[in-house]
Amino acid sequence: MTFAENHTSITRQRPSELLALIRAEPPLVQCITNFVAMNIAANVLLAAGASPAMVGDAEEAGEFARIAGALTVNIGTLSPQMMEGARAAIAGAHEAGRPWVLDPVACQATAYRRAASAELAGLKPAIIRGNASEILSLAGEESHGQGVDGRDGVEAAETGARRLAAKTGAMVAVTGEIDLVTDGKRVARIGGGSSYMPMNTAMGCSLTGLCGAYAAVAVDPFDAAVGALAHFAVAGTRAHREARGPGSFASLFVDALHAVEPGDLEREAEVAT
Amino acid sequence: MTFAENHTSITRQRPSELLALIRAEPPLVQCITNFVAMNIAANVLLAAGASPAMVGDAEEAGEFARIAGALTVNIGTLSPQMMEGARAAIAGAHEAGRPWVLDPVACQATAYRRAASAELAGLKPAIIRGNASEILSLAGEESHGQGVDGRDGVEAAETGARRLAAKTGAMVAVTGEIDLVTDGKRVARIGGGSSYMPMNTAMGCSLTGLCGAYAAVAVDPFDAAVGALAHFAVAGTRAHREARGPGSFASLFVDALHAVEPGDLEREAEVAT
Amino acid sequence: MTFAENHTSITRQRPSELLALIRAEPPLVQCITNFVAMNIAANVLLAAGASPAMVGDAEEAGEFARIAGALTVNIGTLSPQMMEGARAAIAGAHEAGRPWVLDPVACQATAYRRAASAELAGLKPAIIRGNASEILSLAGEESHGQGVDGRDGVEAAETGARRLAAKTGAMVAVTGEIDLVTDGKRVARIGGGSSYMPMNTAMGCSLTGLCGAYAAVAVDPFDAAVGALAHFAVAGTRAHREARGPGSFASLFVDALHAVEPGDLEREAEVAT
Repeated sequence: MTFAENHTSITRQRPSELLALIRAEPPLVQCITNFVAMNIAANVLLAAGASPAMVGDAEEAGEFARIAGALTVNIGTLSPQMMEGARAAIAGAHEAGRPWVLDPVACQATAYRRAASAELAGLKPAIIRGNASEILSLAGEESHGQGVDGRDGVEAAETGARRLAAKTGAMVAVTGEIDLVTDGKRVARIGGGSSYMPMNTAMGCSLTGLCGAYAAVAVDPFDAAVGALAHFAVAGTRAHREARGPGSFASLFVDALHAVEPGDLEREAEVAT
Repeated sequence: MTFAENHTSITRQRPSELLALIRAEPPLVQCITNFVAMNIAANVLLAAGASPAMVGDAEEAGEFARIAGALTVNIGTLSPQMMEGARAAIAGAHEAGRPWVLDPVACQATAYRRAASAELAGLKPAIIRGNASEILSLAGEESHGQGVDGRDGVEAAETGARRLAAKTGAMVAVTGEIDLVTDGKRVARIGGGSSYMPMNTAMGCSLTGLCGAYAAVAVDPFDAAVGALAHFAVAGTRAHREARGPGSFASLFVDALHAVEPGDLEREAEVAT
Repeated sequence: MTFAENHTSITRQRPSELLALIRAEPPLVQCITNFVAMNIAANVLLAAGASPAMVGDAEEAGEFARIAGALTVNIGTLSPQMMEGARAAIAGAHEAGRPWVLDPVACQATAYRRAASAELAGLKPAIIRGNASEILSLAGEESHGQGVDGRDGVEAAETGARRLAAKTGAMVAVTGEIDLVTDGKRVARIGGGSSYMPMNTAMGCSLTGLCGAYAAVAVDPFDAAVGALAHFAVAGTRAHREARGPGSFASLFVDALHAVEPGDLEREAEVAT
């Protein structure tokens, strides 16, 4: 695959423009995420330039969603309490006209996850981000993934991703070696990243948080998903160069997310459309 | 602002003396803290020399508080369960005559947080630590903060901090670029730290934990707050020198918390009274 | 103490053989662990070569246990909800014929912990891993530990460990400066590791997770415990050489867990039988 430099044909706001907006006025991103991801997802958002808030209890999640710029919901450590909070927050986000992002972690693994992710996918998320196994399962197709790892390839998930986008109205982002974003018709592919990423837990969950930050400032959630994936991948590529293993990668990656400026994103993002 | 070397006029135990006590016999600090902070707060306490225990369920929080040296309560990921545990633990701490520290995270953000933080502030905490927006809100004054970030300056919060101290009987620590500690009459200011601190999630929550460690060994919670803030700031200043971004700062900071000896604290702490 | 190179007399599968099995086909390890440990435990398992899944809610924990290679249960942040999930998962693991590992964190600290850990120890764990204070308490002997730290020495716990193994049918792993594994009759000792380990929270919890990974591929849980402890200790020894404090140790340790190959484990493991 070759990566075209010019992807303005299908995007209205380039990753660099969106990053400049984030840095100019850090969006408040409400993250209902899992207990594994909470710390690193918050640090990823802070390093990127956004303002994360992990507010998820049903007592206040809806009220908070009305003051946040975007909401993200991740079912990694799914529970009835988490779902109650998510429902309240999603209602609040819709009321305030703010976008929300769904991360259906391991949605193929149990009956409880299949039901919860199907319910959430029906609540008009602006973006759904998952690995190929998750997207295939949510699209109603056969998946080979077990647990939280994605055994299916991104390319194999393209048809499912298009169908899921058409069914839900969401932008669907499938992440893996090469990432893919589709609204059912348009398709963008994002390269870069690092082989240490799958060895770091909650990388995908953190990327979902970053999709929320980009969605908060973007006009079109398609551009938001492409922007977040490009920023994440550029930082991953940079961190990989100096990393000596998955542990050292983790802190280099956070440094790189912060160091990447809009101009760097313009030059280094590998986006093909 | 200039920092005076001699602050013995208003403190009875200097930061260096308190650190020596912590290192000589690590105090057991019970932390009821949020899910974002639990890991880093525990590591901060361990590196500083204390013994953290994240015990918060109502089934055992009260019993545990009676064997701990101090208790800290942080409402970052507020929920009814968390509050039940906090109430039990606070009762246990009072029964055992041990100090407890309140961290009213984002208390200005929702009605639920305003009610919970007001309730907790009324339960005789020895120290309340927050950013300027949180302290202003808890003091009943106007705040400009949204979510968990503090948009208000520390200096702007001094009057509110004094009033909150007078109202609750707690030492109030307002942290920001320059930190401030007051009991309503005495005021100390602590300099140092790093611009990477606000880019690392749960730094404030971890500092609250450290206030608990210092409170466990101090006679006067005023000295405890000054000591904890000084130790934190000195480690932050040291880590900043070598950090290449917020990610590398995080591990350098933990290294520095451990490396700082009482004598270093004596020389490097920037405390003005 | 001297360490014998040849420990084949009492083990059937050496650490190196087990690590090769893990790397060849990453086992899915279900971890019901505490909120402090979730992130680092997942990263430790990923770096070692396994596939962790933090699935613990009663709604799905039993179903998931039937597809996982092994289960680990850690009571660090004990609660009624956690216990419900653990009971469901343990039943599922037994049904599927898969081993499970118990980590009785701070089981001596409160009445609630003593009851919960006694109940879990009666549910036929394949391995129980704890520090000396925890093992002594669970064995019904006097312990000097407070909170989560282990004030008792590993050697002092040998008799208790043997008795606990005989009583529960589990392999008992006592970790400290020198680790010990026993099934009540056989005893292995594992050296290595780092003095920075006790300064990093959730190291023991992460090791429990690794015991799960080794148990998933081993015939005999005795060999699994020895293998996991050896891998952990070798990585700790390596990381210690370059660490400048507990913070830098943490990422070097994850790098080392990943870098250690079966052949390295064969050469560097310090196992005495």
